[in-house]
Amino acid sequence: MIKNNSDWEMVPGGVTAAKGFLASGAAAGIKYKEKKDIALIFSEVEARVAGMFTTNKVKAAPVLVTMERVSHGSARAVVANSGNANTCNGEQGMQDARAMGSEAARSLGIPEESVLVASTGAIGLPMPMERVLPGIAEAASALSKDGGGPAAEAIMTTDTESKEAAVSFSINGKKVTIGATAKGSGMIHPNMATMLCFITTDAAVELDCLKEALRYAVDRSFNMITVDRDTSTNDMVLVLANAQAANEEITVQSKDYFIFRDHLTRICSHLAQAMAKDGEGATKMIEAQVINAATEADARLAARAVAGSNLVKAAIFGEDANWGRILCAAGYSGAEFNPDTADVFLNGVKVAENGCSLAGCEEDAARALSENKVHILIDFKSGNFEATAWGCDLTYNYVRINAHYRT
Amino acid sequence: MIKNNSDWEMVPGGVTAAKGFLASGAAAGIKYKEKKDIALIFSEVEARVAGMFTTNKVKAAPVLVTMERVSHGSARAVVANSGNANTCNGEQGMQDARAMGSEAARSLGIPEESVLVASTGAIGLPMPMERVLPGIAEAASALSKDGGGPAAEAIMTTDTESKEAAVSFSINGKKVTIGATAKGSGMIHPNMATMLCFITTDAAVELDCLKEALRYAVDRSFNMITVDRDTSTNDMVLVLANAQAANEEITVQSKDYFIFRDHLTRICSHLAQAMAKDGEGATKMIEAQVINAATEADARLAARAVAGSNLVKAAIFGEDANWGRILCAAGYSGAEFNPDTADVFLNGVKVAENGCSLAGCEEDAARALSENKVHILIDFKSGNFEATAWGCDLTYNYVRINAHYRT
Repeated sequence: MIKNNSDWEMVPGGVTAAKGFLASGAAAGIKYKEKKDIALIFSEVEARVAGMFTTNKVKAAPVLVTMERVSHGSARAVVANSGNANTCNGEQGMQDARAMGSEAARSLGIPEESVLVASTGAIGLPMPMERVLPGIAEAASALSKDGGGPAAEAIMTTDTESKEAAVSFSINGKKVTIGATAKGSGMIHPNMATMLCFITTDAAVELDCLKEALRYAVDRSFNMITVDRDTSTNDMVLVLANAQAANEEITVQSKDYFIFRDHLTRICSHLAQAMAKDGEGATKMIEAQVINAATEADARLAARAVAGSNLVKAAIFGEDANWGRILCAAGYSGAEFNPDTADVFLNGVKVAENGCSLAGCEEDAARALSENKVHILIDFKSGNFEATAWGCDLTYNYVRINAHYRT
Repeated sequence: MIKNNSDWEMVPGGVTAAKGFLASGAAAGIKYKEKKDIALIFSEVEARVAGMFTTNKVKAAPVLVTMERVSHGSARAVVANSGNANTCNGEQGMQDARAMGSEAARSLGIPEESVLVASTGAIGLPMPMERVLPGIAEAASALSKDGGGPAAEAIMTTDTESKEAAVSFSINGKKVTIGATAKGSGMIHPNMATMLCFITTDAAVELDCLKEALRYAVDRSFNMITVDRDTSTNDMVLVLANAQAANEEITVQSKDYFIFRDHLTRICSHLAQAMAKDGEGATKMIEAQVINAATEADARLAARAVAGSNLVKAAIFGEDANWGRILCAAGYSGAEFNPDTADVFLNGVKVAENGCSLAGCEEDAARALSENKVHILIDFKSGNFEATAWGCDLTYNYVRINAHYRT
């Protein structure tokens, strides 16, 4: 069933690519009149569910509701809105989050506990429930196999494009699909971002295995992007697995686990990079890779600090090969390394060797920085571990967007 | 000798306000033709010295040289340049840092080991020693009791104004003075900033006591400011105490210690706030105060995260009372608190109560944010500890300055 004789391929359809999932998007007028702002994702049968949530002490009401429901291990639907975060709304916020779930449950004819709820938007504004609830009913009546795109649109906030990905692959001769949609553009920082990501798969996966695979994938994708080092109150990654591919159940012990885990990581990484590229105001995507570190932890710390440094980001925007800021960011990251042996490359052009300037590289470096994607490579020359983090440049537009977000 | 019957007063003179200290600034043409870029501070007699240095793994050559010399506990002079950080210059950088000290020692007729060296500017560029060395000789010949101002000018980089402060107070009937100069505007982050601060005092202070007082003062001043969360490679705070006030030597056990320590903290705090106000591109200073926290550590974490959040900073620039971002930053800071009992005030206007929006405050809040200084107060209502951090708004000019710093 897989084309091209390869054992996997990217496929269209996003969150509805996997068997037995429907989705839709509706425009309820929560913040803007015409924009889709309610997303609904529905599994035709009960699905196993795993989730990861913001580590912020301040958690949105829907995060609290959904954390509790995910702990039961199964779900049927996800209802999400953009345009309002439903955060810092006190007890009313909790009631509103539950009411969103109830309305979806009523419309879909499933138990309230089977509905997961997510919100994204501005903090501290009351939810306009008189518009949200009809929007949910409308989304329920619009559910379809083609609804991945509208659902992806409905969760966008400052995103300039919707984000979807799906992959099909074989597990023991059975075709399995993982699809997902995500949003995220600002307030993006490892652990996690101001992001939502909903992943659906028709794989049959044992629950602990699903949790383990999600942790692994998120750690190497959404936890490695940074736009502004602000960890939000609403972050949520959910994966629903409904077993409609009829494969033998994947367990942590099975060889199939690694196949599943790596494709899940591929999808998450794809969407994480799409977020970094679409970072608020971004003109360039930054990929910061640290190689030959003594430990993976050192590589991760340094890569994330470099991708997240305001000064590195501003220099990239200005196409200034100010590599000193790159080593400086690695230096304060907490990573162990010897600055006197580190080399730095910008899109393949070596600009520093053993911690010192390389004469005569400025012209090549300037040319390298004129690209839309800037690959920063730091070679620690002290071990065999590596890590990659993604971010974007810091621009006038980032300031403009965030100075007037609510107005 | 102290005016106004108060037991202390701010006095002019900066780094030369204390007895027995001379200073000067010279224009060597390191980066710009006319700008003063060499500062020299000289104690007429041997002084005790304590220092605090950047925690970055990547340390400038002058930091390494000066750390070693400060460990001996005494010094006579500080030579500092702006326009070049002398960082990431390998063995040549170390030779150049030592040569700066040698030239100052030769000009002043003191041992090389008595001279402390500091640099600030761009990373990874060779030091133009053919201009630096004559500049040091010129600065030595220009030393005077009026040289505090020129020395303060000479260490400026992107600072828009020079930074000096001095205080005189009584210790057991003897007049004691502490004076200082500092620079810092961008790459400013707790632990520490891209900053230099040179403090001189005529107090007689036992060495361990001097170290202890400096740690205390820096922790509550320079370690509580943030402009962009980038810890630099060149940070240095030095205090020279030459005992010319002829007071009884201050020890950690003496009551005088607290007087000395608190005035030292006053001077450091004054200069730290001047840096925050002069943050690159800043239009508004931000003072983030957390009160009634369960521990001082919680208060410090939250205050620094709020003052450092790009999203809070951009909202303040836009005069948008987006207090949700304030609680959000406190939430990811690592501080323990209950979001459901936290109140938030902006320049005295309560905008959130018990973690929820207060209806009808928007107009007052907008008026409050039109001020040049924005005081953010978060009341955790869970203890008796407090902390204050200082920063500035995030503006188009910050991006402009840092996109084209080297060009």
